[in-house]
This record gives sequence, structure tokens and C-alpha cells, in this order.
Amino acid sequence: MSLTLGEIARMVDGQLAGNPEISVDGAAIIRDAKTNDLTFADSSNALKQLAESSARAVLLPFDLDAQGLPCIRVKNVQQAFTQIIRHFDPPIPGEPPTISDGARISPTAKIGQHVHIDAGVTIGSDVVVGDHCTIHPGVHIMAGSVLADHVTIFSNTVLYEKTRVGKHAIIHSNVSIGVYGFGYETINGEHHLSAQLGNVVIGDKVEIGAGTTIDRGTYGSTTIGEGTKIDNQVMIAHNCHIGRHNCICSQVGIAGSCVTGDYVVMAGQVGLRDHLHIGTGARLGAQSGHMADIEPGETRMGTPAMPGKEFWKAFSTWKKMPGFVRTFKELQRRVGALEDKQADDNNRKAA
Amino acid sequence: MSLTLGEIARMVDGQLAGNPEISVDGAAIIRDAKTNDLTFADSSNALKQLAESSARAVLLPFDLDAQGLPCIRVKNVQQAFTQIIRHFDPPIPGEPPTISDGARISPTAKIGQHVHIDAGVTIGSDVVVGDHCTIHPGVHIMAGSVLADHVTIFSNTVLYEKTRVGKHAIIHSNVSIGVYGFGYETINGEHHLSAQLGNVVIGDKVEIGAGTTIDRGTYGSTTIGEGTKIDNQVMIAHNCHIGRHNCICSQVGIAGSCVTGDYVVMAGQVGLRDHLHIGTGARLGAQSGHMADIEPGETRMGTPAMPGKEFWKAFSTWKKMPGFVRTFKELQRRVGALEDKQADDNNRKAA
Amino acid sequence: MSLTLGEIARMVDGQLAGNPEISVDGAAIIRDAKTNDLTFADSSNALKQLAESSARAVLLPFDLDAQGLPCIRVKNVQQAFTQIIRHFDPPIPGEPPTISDGARISPTAKIGQHVHIDAGVTIGSDVVVGDHCTIHPGVHIMAGSVLADHVTIFSNTVLYEKTRVGKHAIIHSNVSIGVYGFGYETINGEHHLSAQLGNVVIGDKVEIGAGTTIDRGTYGSTTIGEGTKIDNQVMIAHNCHIGRHNCICSQVGIAGSCVTGDYVVMAGQVGLRDHLHIGTGARLGAQSGHMADIEPGETRMGTPAMPGKEFWKAFSTWKKMPGFVRTFKELQRRVGALEDKQADDNNRKAA
Repeated sequence: MSLTLGEIARMVDGQLAGNPEISVDGAAIIRDAKTNDLTFADSSNALKQLAESSARAVLLPFDLDAQGLPCIRVKNVQQAFTQIIRHFDPPIPGEPPTISDGARISPTAKIGQHVHIDAGVTIGSDVVVGDHCTIHPGVHIMAGSVLADHVTIFSNTVLYEKTRVGKHAIIHSNVSIGVYGFGYETINGEHHLSAQLGNVVIGDKVEIGAGTTIDRGTYGSTTIGEGTKIDNQVMIAHNCHIGRHNCICSQVGIAGSCVTGDYVVMAGQVGLRDHLHIGTGARLGAQSGHMADIEPGETRMGTPAMPGKEFWKAFSTWKKMPGFVRTFKELQRRVGALEDKQADDNNRKAA
Repeated sequence: MSLTLGEIARMVDGQLAGNPEISVDGAAIIRDAKTNDLTFADSSNALKQLAESSARAVLLPFDLDAQGLPCIRVKNVQQAFTQIIRHFDPPIPGEPPTISDGARISPTAKIGQHVHIDAGVTIGSDVVVGDHCTIHPGVHIMAGSVLADHVTIFSNTVLYEKTRVGKHAIIHSNVSIGVYGFGYETINGEHHLSAQLGNVVIGDKVEIGAGTTIDRGTYGSTTIGEGTKIDNQVMIAHNCHIGRHNCICSQVGIAGSCVTGDYVVMAGQVGLRDHLHIGTGARLGAQSGHMADIEPGETRMGTPAMPGKEFWKAFSTWKKMPGFVRTFKELQRRVGALEDKQADDNNRKAA
Repeated sequence: MSLTLGEIARMVDGQLAGNPEISVDGAAIIRDAKTNDLTFADSSNALKQLAESSARAVLLPFDLDAQGLPCIRVKNVQQAFTQIIRHFDPPIPGEPPTISDGARISPTAKIGQHVHIDAGVTIGSDVVVGDHCTIHPGVHIMAGSVLADHVTIFSNTVLYEKTRVGKHAIIHSNVSIGVYGFGYETINGEHHLSAQLGNVVIGDKVEIGAGTTIDRGTYGSTTIGEGTKIDNQVMIAHNCHIGRHNCICSQVGIAGSCVTGDYVVMAGQVGLRDHLHIGTGARLGAQSGHMADIEPGETRMGTPAMPGKEFWKAFSTWKKMPGFVRTFKELQRRVGALEDKQADDNNRKAA
């Protein structure tokens, strides 16, 4: 399966600088490349790492120079590299879409064209599955749920009743959508579950990572806006309205009834208390904990969160505190000495 | 499906103030209500939001006033609202309890009356399932486990060997109960797993959110007390004894052998180190990290956690530190000036 | 099933101090032991707790003394206690390895000898399963994955395409391995998923807790080194290279392309930003958040993380800050008084 640089240059329509007879056995990122591998660099920073790499040749954009290493220049480095990787490690051919006889589909469900439903799937009453959907083994879709066209759901994910999923959405494995909200009223020392009449509505092109959980609305819908991307193990509580094109990184927890604008970015392990409004384009630093609304475009860090610049100033001061306390004690000593001297002077005058 | 206010008032046994011929097409919470919707307000705070809502009419308790909006007054607002929601969005009728031929049930298992067991469920040897239990598709219950009456388990949840679940417990989807504890002894550079002989015992009326994991005891039981509610993605490690009526919010992590009293509240993303005792009624603030026991009724915040009041005092001081450092430098300058002056005076006297 | 101390001493080859006719009904750890139970103590700390225990007898190593309680001394306390526990609570006999007719196995998959594959399992094309593997119900293994010998996978875990799992690995329930990495390029306001051509490679003797998620590499492999133990609900992102014999506690989140050495310990809820290098033997304190590389053997705490000693010094100063601010104001007052006095003196001289 090895290829010469000449063959690769032709395959990706690139411009070779180096001996076309040099051959490579594989392709890997700079950090992992071995002596027979081709790699790629797409920034001047990557070029620096390339100096310490054992790669035999490199794929470059037209504006970078590999300093002696044989290289192939292309318009779109990532695209060409993908093509080369696929040559060395061809994708496993997908099966033609079929509906497994090991799936249990309610007679009242409506299934579209070109749908793949694998073994161990259950589909409840009145469910609608659009065209070109792929439902992996062990997925359970409860009564009244609706999937638009081109939805992909990976194994062992569960959609509770009346979940709605938009076009081209991708939901990974072991996800739970439409879980009961964590709302209780305490009567005579016992916690009683609130109403659980709502559902979850997921927009077009939303992507949801493995192990994520989204609670249903109390009376209405918990909603995830179009184009929003959610990483693994994220928690979104009941009644939240997440805006469009948000990026919500792994292990973020959003409490009930929060509302976010568009293009909000939440880094890993962020926590939000309930009923917050987060403005469009706001950026929430990793592990930050939020107890207050955030204006559009603001960056917030820390727990409890504060504006990013203020956080860094307070943090850098904090690190210096132990030294500062020593300086303070020295100042106390100096003031004490001044006072003693002044008292001395007074006594002398009085004498 | 639209209803007049007169019809609604009769349905919920309420007292109408307004034109009984006004009709509404749906019901929604204030934030989401559209111009044809009925909404509800159950506090003076909600009344303020109502001013900006487009709702056509409102459901109120007898002690609130809607300032001109047509309203229906009822004794229990939440209950009446639930009734109205169910009119507009009727629940999908549940199937009669059946035991699916797609379930695999050990011949030594004992299954009660009126039990629903769905497709893709496996039930191991010597398992006992009480009356009126509902087991959703893809649940796996391992050998020797015992479910009391009226237990509900949602899809793809796994109970390891000898798990015991109390009456009226609800366990959501993708939960793992009875996992091996994370205890290792390192011998010659390799980590060896500790004994995994125990199990998990879950009390009556416990509710457990999706994606939560509970480890088995090393030799005995990890226990969850009656009436305790656990949110999604909570982690409870081996040998913990969680008390009764605790509320444990999402993404909390409790390390091994912790013991909690009753009515403990842990907010989201709290972390506890191992072997802690948390007193009855203690409250642990969101994202707080605990390294010490907590007295009954105490509130703790921060990482490492401290009493709530102390935390807020220290935090507000912390935010002011950068300004404080400037003031301190000014004070240093003033002391320097005093010293210079004193030295001058001394020199002059000496001269 | 009760036993006399004489019988137990013979069973565990131990040395009895006390009446051999005393009988016990069960065995439990000190905290949980009732009046008819045998317990064990393996440290002087445990001996202190023993004083408040109701246990009837105790298992001890040869270098500890039970102060009057009947005891049995043995070489390996944990091992002997496990033997006794198993007498009172015998393990449920495992079924002989069988391949369930309720499993769906691709005709191109290769299955080894003495393999147990349970109901509801799906195994994709070209998958290889080694000898002595145990695959619990509801596991889905996608095309091209390879399991070495003696691998155990618990229920409802999902392996995406081309996952490789080493010998004697144990993977708990509801785990997702090989999920798409969370990498996007934003073009015209839409986030486009990066290439997802890589896979996950898991070393020999790795153990992975329930609910954990591991993303595939972008072009190459995300790797977990031999002997590394991973707790429940851990998140490991795309392209990470985790070293050998790491201990990664519950709810840790590791962002993309991080590399760790061997014997790294991460306590619960730790977070790492992307592209970090963590040296061999480094220790990361619970809930700490990391934005910088860590040298071998270093301990780091806090968010953003700093060396452990520095953290504790800064933290203890921080707690004292409110009192310190009061002292500071007092010092300001004293300096003011000195300045007033000096001004007075000057005025007097001038007069």
C-alpha cells in the first residue's frame, strides 16, 4: 500500500518539491509520524514542531516552506490529508440501509425512505422517522417522537416521549433526551416530583456528544437551537432554551430555565445556576461557575464568575498575597518605629 | 381544541374574572406564552414577568391580582395548569402491562403481578421483580437483584449483581448501579483491583437521574436512603451511605465511604473526598469541593470549602485585592515620606 | 450459615486468641458490623474505630492487638476476609461461556475460544474477539474493532469502528469509546465537524468505569497506556495519549491532544485544557483546572492550577484577608496620625 510522492502529488492535485520516487508507507499527524510517514503542517507553529518530527515528507499550503523536507503543496491541506489517510486506511463500506428484523417498530410509527434501523432498536407508537435516517443498535425512541430527515442516532441512546429532532442532527451513544426535570416540592418532609408534561426539541444540524443528558420541560419544551454543538457528558436541565450555533464543551452543567443567545461558547466543566440569561457571543471560561446573567460578547471566568480581565488581575494578586503579607508586616514595623520615635521626641520636649 | 375561559373555569373549578367567551388555543409558562395562550402566575415575582408577556389570560391563586388581564382563580395553580396542559396535549395512552417476547428472563427469576417488561430486557438468575414494576427496553438486571413493588426503570439502565431497589423507586435511562469500586493496591508497579464483594441497596421512593453511576460496596453495601432524589450524571462511589431525603444535583461526585445525614442538599458539580461525614440538613454550594466533615445544618461553599458567610467575606475581599494593593503602595510611600522627614529632622538637630 | 471462631481460624489458616466456641453470623467492615458479625482491622487507625464497633470478633494482622476482643491473626487480612465474606454470601455461579442466539454477529467477524456473548449484543463486520472474552447484554461493537484475549465488557457499552482493546481489559457499562472528536471549523457562521478518521487504542489491563467517554483521534489514534485505571464518568478527548499505569478518578475531563507520562494520578473532577504535557508521576489535586504543562513528579492544585505548596500558602492567606483588611485600615489610621502630628510640629516650628 506504499505510495511514492509522485503518486501522492497526482492523487491530491498538488505541487511536489522533492524526489518523486521517495515512497511513504502511511500518514500521521506531526506528533505521531514515524520515519516512513507523510505528515502535514498548516501553520508556522506546526512548522516548528516539524523540525523535531521523523516524518519523511510533508503536505503544505502554498504559503509555507518546509526547509529541505520533501513537500507537496496543495490548496486545502486538511482535505488532501484526509484523502491520503483514506488511501492508507480505507473506510469500512457502510451497509445498504435496511430495517433489521431484530428491531421492534410500533405499527402506528411512520418510517421514511432509505432509513437504516438496526437490531435491538425499539420505536414507540406514533413515532415519525424521516428519510435517510440511521438508527444504530439499541436505540429506544419513545411514543410520539419525531425525527426529521437525515438524522443519525448512535447506539444505546434513549429519546423519551415526544422528543423532536431536526434535520441532519447527529446524536452519539448513551445519550438520554427527555429525562424528567429535577424539580421537587417538599411536603411533610417528602420531596414530590413536579409536573413532567413537556418535551425536548432539538434543532437542525445540532450535534450531541456521548453520555449527554437533556431534561424535558415542565409544561413546555426544553429547546436546543439550530447548529448548536454539544460535547460529551453535558447536562442541560428542564426548560432551558439554548440558542443557535452555541459550542458547549464536555461536562458543562446548565441548571433549569437558562436561556442563551447565539454563538455562546462554554468551555469544559462550566456550571450555570438556574434562570440565567447568557447574551449572544458570550464566552465562559473552563470550570467557571455562574450566578449572574452575562451581557452579549462578555468573557467570564472563575467561581463565582467575573469579567475575564478582572479575574486575571485578582488571580495574579492572589498568588502574590503571601509575599505581600510579609511586606505588610515590615511596614507595620516601620510605622511602629516612627511612632516610637515621635513619642520619644514628645517625651524629650516635655522633659 | 381551543377552549373559552368559561369552559376552562368550569374544568378546573375556578372563579373567572373577565369575558367567558374569550378563547385560548394553548397553555404555556409566562416566558413561552404566545398571544393565544393561557399562562399562570403563582408569585408576585411571576406577576412582574406577566406584564411583558403576550398571554391572553392567566391562572392565579386567590391572593394575587392580574391587573386587567382576564384571569381564573383556583386553589392549586400548578394542579389546575397541569389539567389544562393535558387538555391541549393529551398524554399518550400507556400500553397495558405485558411481558415482551423480546425480553430474556432467567427461568429462576420471580416476576410479580401487573409487571411490564419490554423488548431487549435481560433478567438474570434468581432476580425478583415485585408487582406493578415497569422495565423499559434495553434494561439489564444481573443475577440476584431484587426489585420491590412499583419500581420503574427506564431504557438501557444496568443493575449489576444483587442490587436491591425499594418501592416506588424511579431510575432513569443509561444509569449504572453496582459498578466495581475504584480501589486499587499497587504491587510492583501494577494497580490491582480491590475486592468487589458488595452491592448497592436503594431505598423506597428514591429517584435517580439519567447517566448516574453508583459503585458497589467493597465487602458490604453502598446505600441510598429512602426518599433521596439524585439528578443526572451523579457519581456515588463504593461504600457510601447516603441518608434519607437528600437532594443531590447534577454532576456531583462523592468519593468512597462518605456518610450523609438526612435532608442534605448538594448543588451542582459538588465534589467530596472520601470518608467524609456530612451532617443532617447541611447545604453544599454549587461546585464546592469538600475535604472536611460538615456539621448538621451548616452551609459550605468554595474549594476547599468553608462556611458560607466566611466564603462570601473572603471572596468579596479577593475581588478588591488589586485596588487594595494600589492603596497599600500609596501607604508605603507615605510611610517613606514620614521616615525621610524624621531623618531630616534628626540631621538638622544633629547639625 | 453461622460459624464458630474455631471453624473460621481453620478456614483462613489463622491463629485464634479467644474462645473457639464463639459463633458469628456474618462479616462486615467496622462501620457496618453488627453484634453477631466478625470484622477486620488492618491499621492502628482502624483499631481506634474498632473500639466503638459492636463486632463480636476481629481479624487482625500479626502486628496489631485487639485489646480484649476475640481475634484471629492472619498473614493477609484482606484475602482472609474475602474468603469469609464469600462463605456467608457465596458468589452466584457464572454461566458457562455461550454465544446467545439473541446476539447478532456479522458473518465476517472472528470469534475466539471460550467466549461468552450475551443476548442483545451486536458485532459488526471484520470484528475480532479474542479467547476468553465476556461480552454482557446490549454491548455494540462496530466494524473493524479488535478485542484481545480475556477482555470483559459490561452491558450497554458501545465501541465505535476500529476500536482496539488490549488483553485483560475491563470496560464497565454504558461506556462510549470512539465517539467523534469535538473539533469544528466555523465557516460563514456554521460549525463544520473536523475529520473523524482515527480510532481509540486501549492497552492491556486497562480498566474503564461506567459512563466514561473516549473520543477517536482526528487522523490517528487516541491511546490509553497499559495498566491505566479510569474511573466512572471520565471524559478523554480526541488525540490524547494517556501513559501507562495512570489513575484517573471520576468526572475528570481531559481536552484534546493531551499527553501524560506514566503513573500520573488525577483526583476527581480535574480538568485539563488541550495540548498539555503531564510528566510521569505528576499528581493533580481534586477539582484542579490545568492550563500549563506539568513537570514529572509535581503536585498541582487549584484553578488555574499552581504547585501544591504555593496553593496552600495562598489559600491560607486568602482566608485571613478579611481580618487583614481591618488591620490594614488601622495602619492607615496610624500613619494618618503620624502625618498630622508631623504637620502640627512643622506648623508650630513655622509659627
